Amino acid sequence: MTSTWAISFADIEAAARRIAPLVHRTPVATCAALDRLAGRRLFFKCEHLQKVGAFKFRGACNAIAALGEEAERGIVTHSSGNHAQAVALAARLRSVQAHVVMPHDSNPKKRAAVLDYGARVVSCELAEREAVALLVAEQTGAVLVPSYNHPDVIAGQGTAALELLQEVPDLDAIIAPIGGGGLFAGTAIAAAHLRPGIRIFGAEPLGADDAARSFAAGHWLPQSAPRTIADGLRTSTGTLTWPIIRDFAEAVVTVEEPEIVRAMRHAWERAKLLIEPSSAVAVAAVLGDAFRELEGIERVGIILSGGNVDLDALPW
Amino acid sequence: MTSTWAISFADIEAAARRIAPLVHRTPVATCAALDRLAGRRLFFKCEHLQKVGAFKFRGACNAIAALGEEAERGIVTHSSGNHAQAVALAARLRSVQAHVVMPHDSNPKKRAAVLDYGARVVSCELAEREAVALLVAEQTGAVLVPSYNHPDVIAGQGTAALELLQEVPDLDAIIAPIGGGGLFAGTAIAAAHLRPGIRIFGAEPLGADDAARSFAAGHWLPQSAPRTIADGLRTSTGTLTWPIIRDFAEAVVTVEEPEIVRAMRHAWERAKLLIEPSSAVAVAAVLGDAFRELEGIERVGIILSGGNVDLDALPW
Repeated sequence: MTSTWAISFADIEAAARRIAPLVHRTPVATCAALDRLAGRRLFFKCEHLQKVGAFKFRGACNAIAALGEEAERGIVTHSSGNHAQAVALAARLRSVQAHVVMPHDSNPKKRAAVLDYGARVVSCELAEREAVALLVAEQTGAVLVPSYNHPDVIAGQGTAALELLQEVPDLDAIIAPIGGGGLFAGTAIAAAHLRPGIRIFGAEPLGADDAARSFAAGHWLPQSAPRTIADGLRTSTGTLTWPIIRDFAEAVVTVEEPEIVRAMRHAWERAKLLIEPSSAVAVAAVLGDAFRELEGIERVGIILSGGNVDLDALPW
Repeated sequence: MTSTWAISFADIEAAARRIAPLVHRTPVATCAALDRLAGRRLFFKCEHLQKVGAFKFRGACNAIAALGEEAERGIVTHSSGNHAQAVALAARLRSVQAHVVMPHDSNPKKRAAVLDYGARVVSCELAEREAVALLVAEQTGAVLVPSYNHPDVIAGQGTAALELLQEVPDLDAIIAPIGGGGLFAGTAIAAAHLRPGIRIFGAEPLGADDAARSFAAGHWLPQSAPRTIADGLRTSTGTLTWPIIRDFAEAVVTVEEPEIVRAMRHAWERAKLLIEPSSAVAVAAVLGDAFRELEGIERVGIILSGGNVDLDALPW
């Protein structure tokens, strides 16, 4: 723990030891066709093949595994996305009760998956979800595990980049999508330690570009009215993740919606990587002109964040 | 080389050494949700992540790499499917010309992919493809590399099971889909050697069940008028593959079309494995009642043969 950043590399190492028996060590994929499109070699860390289909399981697992006896009182979180399933499964693996606060209009399949993992679902209005989660915590004594703005969650997410760099040590650059910033923050701390001088990039949809705008302004700006198909990236960055973005990112690359859909389709069609739009944002970033024109980068690691897609509503 | 079967395990070992620098060592995936559906543990060998998106690249690579100077005269094959791309890329990697005979009505995307790899495409009527391939061989001196009925092709396909059993040695059973039978034959020879007593299964669509009917009859029967979504499995088994099916398979499990589509969707949705219908046939087989009721099988290896799917015409 440094005074400046929420976590240090030692926290990621500890997380890796803690969650090793619980998570999949996901493969690293390569694809000559995508390499040609990007003009350099790409190494995809396949977190869509992680349990619950997303990197979120790493952070949830680490946060819950790091708890002492207080875990017995249960876990509470609010999420309508991958973090909800991640907490539900991680709690079940520790044999403790999870309470997941979800907005009324959450995807019925995601709600069913959370219930399947044995969690209790608490429905509420979208705007009230934080208040309801705090209320549940107060009433039940359950411990709150937020989806990104928490050191143990960030450290858990950093284990994906740790594994990637163990397998492919000689990367020149690494890129992760930014929603709340937990994945990016963990990735940055891991990569900067393991590969000093590595160039670190974030990727965002133009329709939810709070990190890019914050980065340009030099101070934190919230996300308002996000409009993007990348449903995992609609949130604002947090008090713990923003300083790491500010200090470690060389740039936050933004991409437009058609680029996201095109990159997702390329990943499916050419590389057989069944990724969700939020992951495709990072792929689109490396395929875009701005990134392609950067010099001195031969080998790029890309964290593919997840693969939870509605197969009945594909964007093409 | 034994007198009974087209290849021995030593041929697969030689193939593995020969193609190691050329092929992807594909990952082995697991998925708790599919394990629950199958009632046992499943280990998926991800050949959809192989180059050209299918195991076919292994056999083509091995056959072409095993050639001497005669390869300089070029390679010829006929295929409208994954073998076409596999030969085109394998020939390019050896810097020799490939001639690929494809029926007029082949999928334009597959034709474009073959041309992209630098091969020459020779169009013909479906019924004339073998004759045209022989004619090209005669005219150009090119060496014929057939899609399954060839020892080097079978040995190459066997390297997928070899890798799977190196990574997960304690399988009780292994299953591969059967089209021409090259993948099954290589799988059977590898598995029987590496894990004596392992139970070996083939999987076929009911709409192209020549191997199952041959197996039941005790003698070879051809496939006629196949009707299945699993386009990779519409061919008849061959003179080299049938004896291995006959002698090594415990059973050839058949599945109906709706089971194939359901299994494919499960693999995509739950395991994020972007597999084509031919691969889903093997998944459907292990999810079906007949296989579920077999006793004494805890851990099953499944060869996922490929992931070349038309994303604009998904079967759901």
